[in-house]
Amino acid sequence: MSKTPADKADKQATLTEARTRIDSIDQQLQSLISERARWAQQVGRAKGPLKAAVEYYRPEREAQVLRGVIDRNDGPLPNAELVRLFREIMSSCLSQQQPLKIGFLGPEGTFSEQAVRKHFGHAAYGLPLGSIEEVFQEVAAGNADFGVVPVENSGQGMIQMTLDMFLVSKATICGEVELRVHQNLLSLSGELKDVKRVYSHPQSLQQCQGWLRVNLPHVERIPVSSNAEAARTARLSPESAAIAGETAGRVYGLKTVAGPIEDRSDNTTRFLVIGRSIFPPSGNDRTSLLVSVRDKPGALYDVLSPLAHHGISMNRIESRPAHTGKWQYAFFIDVSGHVEDAALQAALEEMKPAAADVRVLGSYPVALP
Amino acid sequence: MSKTPADKADKQATLTEARTRIDSIDQQLQSLISERARWAQQVGRAKGPLKAAVEYYRPEREAQVLRGVIDRNDGPLPNAELVRLFREIMSSCLSQQQPLKIGFLGPEGTFSEQAVRKHFGHAAYGLPLGSIEEVFQEVAAGNADFGVVPVENSGQGMIQMTLDMFLVSKATICGEVELRVHQNLLSLSGELKDVKRVYSHPQSLQQCQGWLRVNLPHVERIPVSSNAEAARTARLSPESAAIAGETAGRVYGLKTVAGPIEDRSDNTTRFLVIGRSIFPPSGNDRTSLLVSVRDKPGALYDVLSPLAHHGISMNRIESRPAHTGKWQYAFFIDVSGHVEDAALQAALEEMKPAAADVRVLGSYPVALP
Repeated sequence: MSKTPADKADKQATLTEARTRIDSIDQQLQSLISERARWAQQVGRAKGPLKAAVEYYRPEREAQVLRGVIDRNDGPLPNAELVRLFREIMSSCLSQQQPLKIGFLGPEGTFSEQAVRKHFGHAAYGLPLGSIEEVFQEVAAGNADFGVVPVENSGQGMIQMTLDMFLVSKATICGEVELRVHQNLLSLSGELKDVKRVYSHPQSLQQCQGWLRVNLPHVERIPVSSNAEAARTARLSPESAAIAGETAGRVYGLKTVAGPIEDRSDNTTRFLVIGRSIFPPSGNDRTSLLVSVRDKPGALYDVLSPLAHHGISMNRIESRPAHTGKWQYAFFIDVSGHVEDAALQAALEEMKPAAADVRVLGSYPVALP
Repeated sequence: MSKTPADKADKQATLTEARTRIDSIDQQLQSLISERARWAQQVGRAKGPLKAAVEYYRPEREAQVLRGVIDRNDGPLPNAELVRLFREIMSSCLSQQQPLKIGFLGPEGTFSEQAVRKHFGHAAYGLPLGSIEEVFQEVAAGNADFGVVPVENSGQGMIQMTLDMFLVSKATICGEVELRVHQNLLSLSGELKDVKRVYSHPQSLQQCQGWLRVNLPHVERIPVSSNAEAARTARLSPESAAIAGETAGRVYGLKTVAGPIEDRSDNTTRFLVIGRSIFPPSGNDRTSLLVSVRDKPGALYDVLSPLAHHGISMNRIESRPAHTGKWQYAFFIDVSGHVEDAALQAALEEMKPAAADVRVLGSYPVALP
């Protein structure tokens, strides 16, 4: 279809207008961002001479700002994209003097680093460390302001190493980050009947084994080093398919045969932000408790019933053998609400006589998209 | 120093005012960002139904927007930080339908991925590939919209593999990205006399060998897998030092013994953005030429003199044996200006008789901070 000169003139007018508007918007955006940075400095000065960012970091305030962004959003950008931009703006404003230092399980480029960036933005310093234990140590020693550690993979349950570190460390929990990954079966043709081989990372193959058993019982499963590698390989032959995320499919030009195909539909990795203090309520918080009980009949029931009495909902519970003595168990319990809430305070008081120890690991804003 | 109640009330008033102002700024920022995204859609609609981001991507326009940001900036945020935020905002606006797909030398987390993110923001899809050759192939095949390949490390010169790919590929150059790294000698005490061992990545040790020979002639140099690893090791003993970037020093709590200590003061890695077309001028551009000459006396002089005649400054020249025939050489030449500039067009016309071939690889905005 050929364009008339009038079409072309219209198009040019729209383009010119759009660019003029965008230029004016950019100028306003810039002066607002700079003004925001100046006010962030004011907040700092109110607390004395400028110090490291950790002195000014208020996760409860950030969570409120971001919830406000989501509440107000009526498009066209999706919530996650707007939240990302505001996190970056806050990250820049906070980092004007000495940026936050965030320890994580390295090397760089891992899932853990993605969680650091999602939560703290790119103006923070990432401090790649060799082990989860080291992340706890560096936070305790003050070499890192915060640490980010994986605590739960919905496919594989709690990450014991992280839980166990709380038994021996004084770290607090200051936040949670969720990274969600869906698995898809991807191939050149997008037809299930063509698939003779399935490539993927061993962990992803495991996450989808139920689906594979039912839908592709006789095909070969070939483990490779990453899902991206699997998608690249699947492009080379119409008989090959890959299990990988949606992004990999788009990136590598494959069609979706089926998806999501993970056996548990909530395939999310959850990370904890660890620190050295507990922050005030944000209005939508979660509290993590570490409760030790003696191994006697009914002990767990006695410990948990105050939560039910006070109408506090329990999100997670995980038991671990405590290292502190024979016949003791430790329970990691996540509940809704903040430790400053009256109901939770009352429940905690009632739990104490029944437990050998009740420790509040932290109260922190519920993860945002 | 204890605070009086009046101090505290003042501080609280400032905090409250700052937060109220920031809340109002955030609301304005959000409505401007959303409006910007809507206008970006308008630009798209002017070109017909919404297509992939590559249809709307205008590097010359982005460069103009970012230069405007730098020109207007009077703090408090540094230019690089504001440019980063605007790149992310443009990245989000551009990615509303199908984000740009950017091929790079993987795996994720490498220097090349940093260059991708610096140039295209985090809303683009990164496509990690196995080799520089593969980046060129995927761009040629249309599986990637653009590719990012390293072309020059100031310590080690041009990266031949990348240059050679232009001899056999039709790729164009659509942009350049510079990542600057300074090396410092870091240790616990910050005193040169304490240093008995220096840890660093072999490449960094090489980049600083002149300085080491003069200042630390008898200390042991120990190569390790990364500069971050070196900084971590240096923390363990007061007799150890690391060569690493400033960030690593801050992150790992080391003092700067000396820096920058690299033998060449412009320790920068330069990347090229490759694509399939040449974009219009941005107002501050560079043009890359690939010129083949016959191996005869004065040939190179004859080819270059038109540039001088027309007052065009040459930024780089690098010769490579051409694969197209015996006794031929290819020269990669970077000059200031855009191929649409009258002076450069005239110079190119005059070069043709003296050269076996003159190919414009691309004209693109000069790298921003």
